[in-house]
Order: sequence, then structure tokens, then C-alpha cells
Amino acid sequence: MLIVGELINSSRKNIQPAVESRDGAFIQDVASKQVEAGAGFVDVNAGTFVDEEPALLSWLVTTVQDHTGCACSIDSANPKAIEAALAVHKGKAMVNSITLEESRYRGIVPLVVRYGCKVVALSMDGRGIPETARARAEISGELVRRLTADGVAREDIYLDPLVQPISTNSNNGTVVLDTIRFISEDLGVNSICGLSNVSYGLPVRSLVNRTFLVLAMGAGLQAAIINPLDKRLMSLLRAAEALLGRDAFCRRYLSAFRKGCFEQEQ
Amino acid sequence: MLIVGELINSSRKNIQPAVESRDGAFIQDVASKQVEAGAGFVDVNAGTFVDEEPALLSWLVTTVQDHTGCACSIDSANPKAIEAALAVHKGKAMVNSITLEESRYRGIVPLVVRYGCKVVALSMDGRGIPETARARAEISGELVRRLTADGVAREDIYLDPLVQPISTNSNNGTVVLDTIRFISEDLGVNSICGLSNVSYGLPVRSLVNRTFLVLAMGAGLQAAIINPLDKRLMSLLRAAEALLGRDAFCRRYLSAFRKGCFEQEQ
Repeated sequence: MLIVGELINSSRKNIQPAVESRDGAFIQDVASKQVEAGAGFVDVNAGTFVDEEPALLSWLVTTVQDHTGCACSIDSANPKAIEAALAVHKGKAMVNSITLEESRYRGIVPLVVRYGCKVVALSMDGRGIPETARARAEISGELVRRLTADGVAREDIYLDPLVQPISTNSNNGTVVLDTIRFISEDLGVNSICGLSNVSYGLPVRSLVNRTFLVLAMGAGLQAAIINPLDKRLMSLLRAAEALLGRDAFCRRYLSAFRKGCFEQEQ
Repeated sequence: MLIVGELINSSRKNIQPAVESRDGAFIQDVASKQVEAGAGFVDVNAGTFVDEEPALLSWLVTTVQDHTGCACSIDSANPKAIEAALAVHKGKAMVNSITLEESRYRGIVPLVVRYGCKVVALSMDGRGIPETARARAEISGELVRRLTADGVAREDIYLDPLVQPISTNSNNGTVVLDTIRFISEDLGVNSICGLSNVSYGLPVRSLVNRTFLVLAMGAGLQAAIINPLDKRLMSLLRAAEALLGRDAFCRRYLSAFRKGCFEQEQ
């Protein structure tokens, strides 16, 4: 499972002041904790700083990479900020994210191609998020066709089926699970998603989120944008990998257990 | 989700002496706690008392039903014990279990038909448990053909794909999940399983078990033989029902939350 650590996001209340004051030590601490916990990419987002986003996003990339050496997920919809961040990024970055919206696609995909990045592609177009799994599957297929035609390698595409709250529509969970299964089995490319939207409006949201992660992994999810410091979430993730035959001899499961990564049992 | 409460089993160390001494109050307490926690059937097993099994199993049925009114899952491979238990059972019982082994099938299925029971059918024959999902699917299909030909209604059949430890073979999880998906999507009948075998030989077994329950529900599992007093397990079960569109307006999830059925969050 590819884990993208989500914590370095300026919309989080403890990250906002650290980015504003360029507190490198604080950011590096959050980055290294996520990498130690299993993150393969560290997401960086400075979206709350509109005008300064390019400067702050590239500062975040340098700050994270100087300390951890880990690749970053450049989390922005602003081509200028993405370009500034990619210009200083070492190794293969992930760009998070594009859609089929024409201006967003045209603004960002040339950068993905030029810098040889992985890319998160949301299954929506200019008309918004489609309601059915079939409509999301169609957009997902179109994204793969267009991205590969433009020069992005299939293995660098991560389709995000866009999770919506089950509190507003009981089908919102299965629509995403069906889309993930289609992406995995029919399109044969990677899928990725965040979790927190699914539980909006419900009590004990973290329980719903981590249950959804397991269901999504069962449907074929290959990557997730999550908090790797959440022990309960990570416990289920490691157990699910072992149960799905994605952890030969349960080695990662056993190693996580020995490192004390699992939640405490009663 | 149909929950079969597994606790009243004479192989459990606190149940054995209660059955031996016919401590009805103790058994009734365990039964009513399981029913309050959501069990639709209370499993009763007196298999450790070989000669006395018929007498003790029918005593367990009467004891449980007098107190809770809940239907029982008659857990035995002994036709005499099953018949004694069914003779005193009120309402529609579940018989747990038959296989395609000829003597077991012929000994038990006539009782299932005569008493109009639900039946758990294990996907194995006289040659043992098949290794691949395809072989289990074949046996599952044969069980459905034969049971329906003998007069068992499709909706009363619960196929059990036989969970084996992932510690001995990394594919053991996916074999069962694939079989559950086949039973649900291709055969269109109910599937059921227990959980504890899957984690044999691993640390933190309850973590592996409850993760497997979520994956199995995602594959289409309709019933599970579990401990409904396990709050962590039940929390995931209720969250999975809501996420899979099997809990309209998240009503059961919200009700379980209000009743304090969920594990405590950090």
C-alpha cells in the first residue's frame, strides 16, 4: 500500500502558523514522523496562502526533503505553485491533483510530463462530481486515455474516485467502492483516495474512515492519502494487506507489531 | 448483517462447567447479552460431551429460548444431537453444519428439511477442504443444487467458504474472499463464516479477525458467527453496514452509537 502522509497542510491549525513563520524544525518533525510510520510520499499543501503559495510550497518541499529525503506529493490546483515546487523537488514527485476540467488539465499536465511525475487524477470534469459509479468510470477511462496520449506512463496515474459522505446518500460508499474495483480490474491502473469526507455528519468519524479504508483496499485501492500516525488506522491497514495477500509471509504485519505500531488491545 | 452469537460453546472454558452442571442462569445470561448486542441466532454447542451431547444440546436450546425467545444455531455434526435439539426448538432454527461428505449430508439434511431449518453448508467434501477458490466455488454450487433438489429453500442456505490461517499461506485470505464474492454474485445465496481461524499463528489475532470481517462484508458476506460482545468488532461491523449501503440513513450505526456499543476512541 502506498501511503501519502496528509498532515503538512496549511488548513490544519497547527501547520498554518508553522508555514507562516517558516518554522522548518516543526515541519521537519511532522515529516519525519510520517515517514517513520510508513509514508512513501509526504503531501505538502500551502493553499491557504493564496499569493505566497508558490514560494511557500517550494519552501515546504525543500524543508521536507532536506530532512527526510522523502518524495513529496505537491498538493495544489495552482500551476504556478506546482511549477515552483517541482523546480526544487529531488526525485520523482507526485502532483495532487488534476481533473478533466479543461483549464486545470491544460495548466498542470504539461508540468507532470516535463518533470516525469506521478499524478492524482480526480474523476470529475467541468460539470462537477458525477453521481453514479458508471459516470465516474467513464471519466476515469477518459482520464487514462488522455493522460497516456499526452505522455504520462500508466503506472504513474493514480485515479481518485472522490469520496462523498454516506450521511447524505446511503449509496455514496458503494459508488466509490464500485469505481475503485472498475479502476483496478477494468482499467488496470492505480487508485487513490482520502477518507475523511465519507464520514462527514456522523459521530465517531475516525471509525467510519478506517472501516472505509479496509473496504476500499478490498476493492483494489493501491494508495491512500491518510494520517500514518493514526495507530488504529495503520493497524487495520497492515492487517488488511496481510489478509489480501499483499504482504508475503505477513512480514510487514509482524514488523509493525514488533515496532509497537499497533493500537493497544483491551 | 445476520449475527450468530458464538459464545455458548462447551469448548470454551467458562461454558464447559456451566453446561456440565446445568447452570441455566449462567447460560441464560450469556444468551441474553448476545441477543441484546445484536445476535439474530444464538449458537449452542455441547460437542465436548460426546455421549451426553443429545441431552445437553436440547437442554441448551430450551434454556436459551425460555429466557430470550431467540432462535438457536444447532452446532453439531451428530444427527442424534441435532434431532434432539430440533425436537424442542421453537420457531425456525439454523443447523450448523453440513458438508458434501456423504454420511454427514445424508444424516443431517433430512432433519433440515423435516424441521424447515436454515442450514450452514461448509464448502468441503470427503476429500477435505479444497485449496483454490475455483474448487470451493464448485463445491458451493453443488451444495446449492443438491440442497434445493432435496427441498431446502435457497434463502435458507448459508454457504461457509471455510476460513484458513493466512500465516500458513498468504493466499488463504483472498481464496475465501473470492469464494464469498462468487457465492454472493454468481450463486446468489447467502454466505456465512467464522473469523478466528484466519489469524491463527499471528500476534494481535482480534485485529486480524475484525479486519477480515470488514473485507468479507465488502465481498458480500451476509452472516457471521462471531462474539457480539466484542465492541471493537461490532463497531467495525456497524460502520461497514453503513458504508456498504446496508443501513438506510445510517440508522443502525447511529442507534449503536447512542447505546454506547462502540469502542471508546482515544
